[in-house]
Amino acid sequence: MNDQYPDTVTIDASEGTRAFSLDRAHVFHSWSAQGALAPWVPAGGLGTTIWDYEGKRYLDFSSQLVNTNIGHQHPAVVAAIKAQADVMTTIAPAHANIVRGEAASRILERAGGHFSKVFFTNGGADANENAIRMARLVTGRDKVLSTYRSYHGNTGAAVVATGDWRRVPNEYARGHVHFFGPFLYRSEFWATTPEQESERALHHLERVIQAEGPQSIAAILIETIPGTAGVLVPPPGYLAGVRALADAYGIVLIFDEVMCGFGRTGEWFSFVTPAATGGERVQPDLVTFAKGVNSGYVPAGGVIISDSIANAFDEEVFPGGLTYSGHPLAMAAIVGTLDAMADEGIVDNARMIGERHLGPGLRALAERHPLIGEVRGVGVFWALDLVADPVTREPVSPAIIGRLKKELMARGLLPFSADNRIHVVPPCVVTPDEVAAALAIYDEAFTAVEA
Amino acid sequence: MNDQYPDTVTIDASEGTRAFSLDRAHVFHSWSAQGALAPWVPAGGLGTTIWDYEGKRYLDFSSQLVNTNIGHQHPAVVAAIKAQADVMTTIAPAHANIVRGEAASRILERAGGHFSKVFFTNGGADANENAIRMARLVTGRDKVLSTYRSYHGNTGAAVVATGDWRRVPNEYARGHVHFFGPFLYRSEFWATTPEQESERALHHLERVIQAEGPQSIAAILIETIPGTAGVLVPPPGYLAGVRALADAYGIVLIFDEVMCGFGRTGEWFSFVTPAATGGERVQPDLVTFAKGVNSGYVPAGGVIISDSIANAFDEEVFPGGLTYSGHPLAMAAIVGTLDAMADEGIVDNARMIGERHLGPGLRALAERHPLIGEVRGVGVFWALDLVADPVTREPVSPAIIGRLKKELMARGLLPFSADNRIHVVPPCVVTPDEVAAALAIYDEAFTAVEA
Repeated sequence: MNDQYPDTVTIDASEGTRAFSLDRAHVFHSWSAQGALAPWVPAGGLGTTIWDYEGKRYLDFSSQLVNTNIGHQHPAVVAAIKAQADVMTTIAPAHANIVRGEAASRILERAGGHFSKVFFTNGGADANENAIRMARLVTGRDKVLSTYRSYHGNTGAAVVATGDWRRVPNEYARGHVHFFGPFLYRSEFWATTPEQESERALHHLERVIQAEGPQSIAAILIETIPGTAGVLVPPPGYLAGVRALADAYGIVLIFDEVMCGFGRTGEWFSFVTPAATGGERVQPDLVTFAKGVNSGYVPAGGVIISDSIANAFDEEVFPGGLTYSGHPLAMAAIVGTLDAMADEGIVDNARMIGERHLGPGLRALAERHPLIGEVRGVGVFWALDLVADPVTREPVSPAIIGRLKKELMARGLLPFSADNRIHVVPPCVVTPDEVAAALAIYDEAFTAVEA
Repeated sequence: MNDQYPDTVTIDASEGTRAFSLDRAHVFHSWSAQGALAPWVPAGGLGTTIWDYEGKRYLDFSSQLVNTNIGHQHPAVVAAIKAQADVMTTIAPAHANIVRGEAASRILERAGGHFSKVFFTNGGADANENAIRMARLVTGRDKVLSTYRSYHGNTGAAVVATGDWRRVPNEYARGHVHFFGPFLYRSEFWATTPEQESERALHHLERVIQAEGPQSIAAILIETIPGTAGVLVPPPGYLAGVRALADAYGIVLIFDEVMCGFGRTGEWFSFVTPAATGGERVQPDLVTFAKGVNSGYVPAGGVIISDSIANAFDEEVFPGGLTYSGHPLAMAAIVGTLDAMADEGIVDNARMIGERHLGPGLRALAERHPLIGEVRGVGVFWALDLVADPVTREPVSPAIIGRLKKELMARGLLPFSADNRIHVVPPCVVTPDEVAAALAIYDEAFTAVEA
């Protein structure tokens, strides 16, 4: 799929220069000190490939921010956006709109189970904001439990639900409590087997629930598979155990599938991915999404709502909303993306790539390179946990990650890094040949850095 | 302008039926009880006109959620979106991108003054979130002062900065303090003249600052002209007085121009609109925007940042960000919109319409209809404050607003209402003829309701 890269791409190098200077002069960047930035300037992309203004091509194994699940510039999605632009770019959320209904219906069809409605937002952060709001209103409780190893978005409540360093300068929301999730390789529970990690992590969560007071807890919010925190595929029984705790204490269970949903794991959602669930049926009450739902071609996100939570707002006013909720252009990109992913077997491809190519390939890589402490993942969603010492598992320094990124870029691979890790997260359309080429590049880059 | 309505529009009525049923089955709506909703189903629009699936045309005097400043389906903006869709729909914010730089440069050119950078977001709420974040970080202080008559968005901090009822079920952010802004018609300060209202409102604000402790206040966040709260054009001297207080106490001044910016007042921004500033030079430190910047054709918002605040993050990491920051498709819509607005004199048109047609016409309407207690506004940004009794100024009941809306829709005008008010907020491209037609409809509808 997507093997039709353009043979010739016309590139105006002066545009690249202008892009760089305008950026440095006028664009304020996310999560950065602005002074010393030297951003890379891509000129275009198609499928798994992206190129710069010097005409150099790269395998995009970042999927940007793990969002271009369908690859760059998928022709069917581009066509869907352009067709919708001709008809109706925007309309207020209070009015009904055909493409919004079509998008909701396709999302619900894929989610299955007891879900009946979708509330659309602009992205993942406000999806989590609104899911938290729903949970608080239906329970009449305040607290939201989430894990330290997590990222849930940039706005008021979402960033305080977040566990990582990005929360700390932003702690202006109340009612957030953090706990430790399972992560055997760096266990917080002195566990030595996946079963023990799962059992102890559940014990820990139940103790936090009891100590916080179950009657004060509105929601447990977790990434089904924590993404930016390191692709932490939960051990067998954990998700089902969290579901059981939520049921036992009357707590709303929210799965954040912003990064791990819509094909990334080789299934439509992580909560139906056997590697994450152990094959058990685990149904959350609310699912938040963004990114993969339309590969970010037009900003969009949302909350998939269970029948019982949706019904709770039949008579009661839901006090949340936004101008671009269910934006027609974003909805057209969702319909185009979900149809193309189904028609072209793109989710199946991601599963096959994970099972036959990326999984085995990355494990073989780890055997050759002592820097790689652990390989974790499923589908096209993998992390290489890099260690200075395989016994103590001490994370490598930022300098090593910096050098690796340079070596990868030099060899034509656009990487994704977080803390001491390289995340291997190509689009779901990636081919076996592209995986083979990427594995060779990772191999060379690790060899160069180890030298 | 935009007098080229299509003579024939092909409408598939069955699509309208399907749009309605899909919506009722699967779409969860903003700010509503879901049970009894019966959303209107528009089929298309062009300029100031919008039509339904029965082929009935309406003058869109709502601009949807006061966002389609350039009207529906402006051909130049549609073309800009389609052209960008062919090149690059999405790219991560860390990379530089030509159209993002072009958008930032056009926004800064229009803002003038001491602004040097733009941080792009998905909409107005996260624009305010990030402006608040910047103010807290540069001052090292916590509190944000905003007015009771205000709306700042739906997410964690933005909704608690909001003053109206939408804040109350959502008060999970800390550090927010509310004060009363000037509003002579319903004065909180027992004032009888604009000058007195301005002076007393400033005294009240200074007393709140002193009582809260200036050393604890990071920001004053106000809509330059509060919009949803009733198009509350500030009295002479108020904005300059707020600027002086912010300077005196070392507080960051944030103007929320999400609704009132980008042409709505007949100027590029409200803070340079003589009706709002009294002609004085009033420069905020941060300006938040969304809606009119690209008429909402693609979701986008952002923060315009003064040189000194931008520089404060040259060495220090800015702890905020989002996947779709500076999204290429949204940026292309900004460039297309701002260029077309300049080339076609659309902002000048809004000013001319306000001065010569809408202002005089609405004031004449008020003389004929005792229901209209006050007419307020500038440009294409007006409110009719409806009263049951002109002496006590008791607001009309929701039932009256409901009946008015029905009468207006029946006569082919799509209205905007909030509380006891009808807001008269057509696109900036509205023509004198369209204003005349709308004024006749308002006249008839008021007559029908008064009967």
